[in-house]
Amino acid sequence: MSQKLSNSEKLYRQAQKVLSGGVSRNTVFRQPYPNYANTASGCYITDIEGTVRTDFANNMAALIHGHSFPPIVDAVISQLKKGTAYTLASEIELSFAKHLIKRVQSFERIRFVNSGTEAVMAMIKASRAYTGRAKIAKAEGSYHGTYDFAEVSQTANPSNWGNIDNPSSVPLAHGTPPCVSNDVVIYPYNDVERTLAILDKQAADIACVIIDPVPHRVGMVPGNQEFVEAVYNWTRENGALMVFDEVITFRVKYGGAQENYKVSPDLTSLGKIIGGGFPVGAVAGREEVMKVFDPHEKNLLLPHSGTFSANPITMTAGYTAMQYFDKKAVTKLNRITDGAIGQIREVIKLLDIPVSITGAGSMFRMHLRPTPPNTYREAYENQEVKKLINELLDYMYYKENILMINTFSCMLSTVMTQKEIDQLTEGLYRAFKALKPKIEKLNKI
Amino acid sequence: MSQKLSNSEKLYRQAQKVLSGGVSRNTVFRQPYPNYANTASGCYITDIEGTVRTDFANNMAALIHGHSFPPIVDAVISQLKKGTAYTLASEIELSFAKHLIKRVQSFERIRFVNSGTEAVMAMIKASRAYTGRAKIAKAEGSYHGTYDFAEVSQTANPSNWGNIDNPSSVPLAHGTPPCVSNDVVIYPYNDVERTLAILDKQAADIACVIIDPVPHRVGMVPGNQEFVEAVYNWTRENGALMVFDEVITFRVKYGGAQENYKVSPDLTSLGKIIGGGFPVGAVAGREEVMKVFDPHEKNLLLPHSGTFSANPITMTAGYTAMQYFDKKAVTKLNRITDGAIGQIREVIKLLDIPVSITGAGSMFRMHLRPTPPNTYREAYENQEVKKLINELLDYMYYKENILMINTFSCMLSTVMTQKEIDQLTEGLYRAFKALKPKIEKLNKI
Repeated sequence: MSQKLSNSEKLYRQAQKVLSGGVSRNTVFRQPYPNYANTASGCYITDIEGTVRTDFANNMAALIHGHSFPPIVDAVISQLKKGTAYTLASEIELSFAKHLIKRVQSFERIRFVNSGTEAVMAMIKASRAYTGRAKIAKAEGSYHGTYDFAEVSQTANPSNWGNIDNPSSVPLAHGTPPCVSNDVVIYPYNDVERTLAILDKQAADIACVIIDPVPHRVGMVPGNQEFVEAVYNWTRENGALMVFDEVITFRVKYGGAQENYKVSPDLTSLGKIIGGGFPVGAVAGREEVMKVFDPHEKNLLLPHSGTFSANPITMTAGYTAMQYFDKKAVTKLNRITDGAIGQIREVIKLLDIPVSITGAGSMFRMHLRPTPPNTYREAYENQEVKKLINELLDYMYYKENILMINTFSCMLSTVMTQKEIDQLTEGLYRAFKALKPKIEKLNKI
Repeated sequence: MSQKLSNSEKLYRQAQKVLSGGVSRNTVFRQPYPNYANTASGCYITDIEGTVRTDFANNMAALIHGHSFPPIVDAVISQLKKGTAYTLASEIELSFAKHLIKRVQSFERIRFVNSGTEAVMAMIKASRAYTGRAKIAKAEGSYHGTYDFAEVSQTANPSNWGNIDNPSSVPLAHGTPPCVSNDVVIYPYNDVERTLAILDKQAADIACVIIDPVPHRVGMVPGNQEFVEAVYNWTRENGALMVFDEVITFRVKYGGAQENYKVSPDLTSLGKIIGGGFPVGAVAGREEVMKVFDPHEKNLLLPHSGTFSANPITMTAGYTAMQYFDKKAVTKLNRITDGAIGQIREVIKLLDIPVSITGAGSMFRMHLRPTPPNTYREAYENQEVKKLINELLDYMYYKENILMINTFSCMLSTVMTQKEIDQLTEGLYRAFKALKPKIEKLNKI
């Protein structure tokens, strides 16, 4: 063992004695040890060794304007001096609610919570309360936070996923009550025929069908028109709700990825960018459904509260972030991202490697296969592929000083310029070139 | 209807058009409308009409140093300029984890999340993952956040709570899957004999018994030694965990309310005051159990993450808050609270009214009955009692400018002095005096 430990390694050794595995979030975990942040500004993050990295992760897609965005810092400092949380209402919550409702056609009422996990949980509970039904349907492989019902089949694999005509409901955590999996119906994303057949079998019990319009873990393939419309029509015919998880995808268009469809979800869960860098979640949608939360109701269907929900700091940061993420900013960011994808496609062509790209708006994911996957099962990466992706990520992180998301994905921010795109492209060129033999070998098997 | 609306009423009318019921938290809801906060400092909160109120709610017990505590404001401003959230580790998370682990004997490892709801959910999931069992046991009437398993029987009432020897598992929200209630065993708090008999019946399936050591909604009666030890011994004999919800009660002693017992919980959930006014939660406990979260494990039993978990702003605010809430501060605050309770008892005696007080540390709750309740069923308030409590709360709020918690409870902060205690006592004197006939009538029925 080396005598000279880096500062981050020293801290991590201490961290392992107090935090389980040394971290509070598995996403910051990195072998042999994670680096510790010192400071971050714009698209750069500097660790305590002094290494500056360009940040294409943006706190797991949560920072739409990068780090320490001056208008957010200023607005939060001003609110800080007036208090961070009250047992009273606050005007900023109202202003932010108005903004979001004006922004998205399907939003008639909104309720804020503290995380994407809480948002999805509230959305599922609202769907059940409104319909009086117990079951939910979700896509195989999709990630919707840590509520156990929402976790089912999140990491289903060939050993347990079952027949595609009737995918198994695979619990994520050990000890998940069997009844949880039993109340979650798994459908294959973008597969109209199979999905409708599966839903039909449990039609009377389904409260909602959850759709992430660009599900990151499924393969970051956008939901196609036909699929979303088919699910919408099915829910209309069967007394169920169609609900969207836009925690990650809200960045895709000014009014969220749902702008891309002719039909609208009954409810939508939000999180990530709408907090301006602070803990946030929200559920929004049709007034009639959102009424389940209304404390005026004599028979309140869904009692719901939260100590920090709609706290004025998160509201201030979030409202500021979203005001600056106006239509022009969305368009510009998506154009920059398209440019980045175009450059990476040139690299792929130049190196003649079997790599494909999926994504939407300001996010994209790379796959070590010649054609983009269409389904979770196609996008599924076995241990060998995962290992190679980790090698690529390590190359980018240690040699190119570029921080990406651990699925080999990038989530861009508005403060990025051509300079950072070029850095990413050139870094990827070198990483792909260095690992080209392994990438090719993978595809020959 | 009045032509002249107050500013808060004007905002609330707008809020009803965008937020379901006009609020994001039912705890800020108030008839006919809630007031909107303008600014808050120390123990005072000023609404947008300019009314200054003394705050005995402290954001539902979350602000141990009151509002805008200068050391927290300064520390947060300094962190703000360095970023609010990274996809890297941060040193402040480590420092805070070390502090909490040193503070509480039963804490060997800790993991941060974003709310008390998330903390309890993570604690339950960890208990299941560790034991491989599906069921949990909780006290009738206890509040543990909005995870549906944790919500069962939270508001059980005479029409549905069943026989005390075998209390019904009553779902809180409409549409809760029947299997949720089925996997939650309800025990009567502080009742050793009945509780053990109930647990025995499902001994092989119980992952954990959750205890709130001073359950607010049960009646704010501390768990007695005998009860906690009996549950502890039962869990040792039956391969289950004893876990504490100290989200609210952590303020009771320097090391949490668990300091009061000879036996220690395997896991503890935290929230509220440990965030220093920012969204927070944590689960802490035995290393062996916390290992379920460890991403180093090849067979990771409980995959778990969270975009904002352990974010450096919450960690900075929370660590600052807890450093200032040292042993001396805890003792001083509890002494001030004892003084307040003593003064209120004098008021009760002076007015000769049937009112009793329960509580622990820096929190207490008043009951409109001559002797303090021992159980949830005794503490349970019917509509008539609830109405009268609302009248008392309104008297205090509108006439005395004192903000209390809606269970007729107070959660004190370290910045309170004899002045605020006297204001509270005098206010209560007038409120009790004005409503004495109604309080007496209630007890005669």
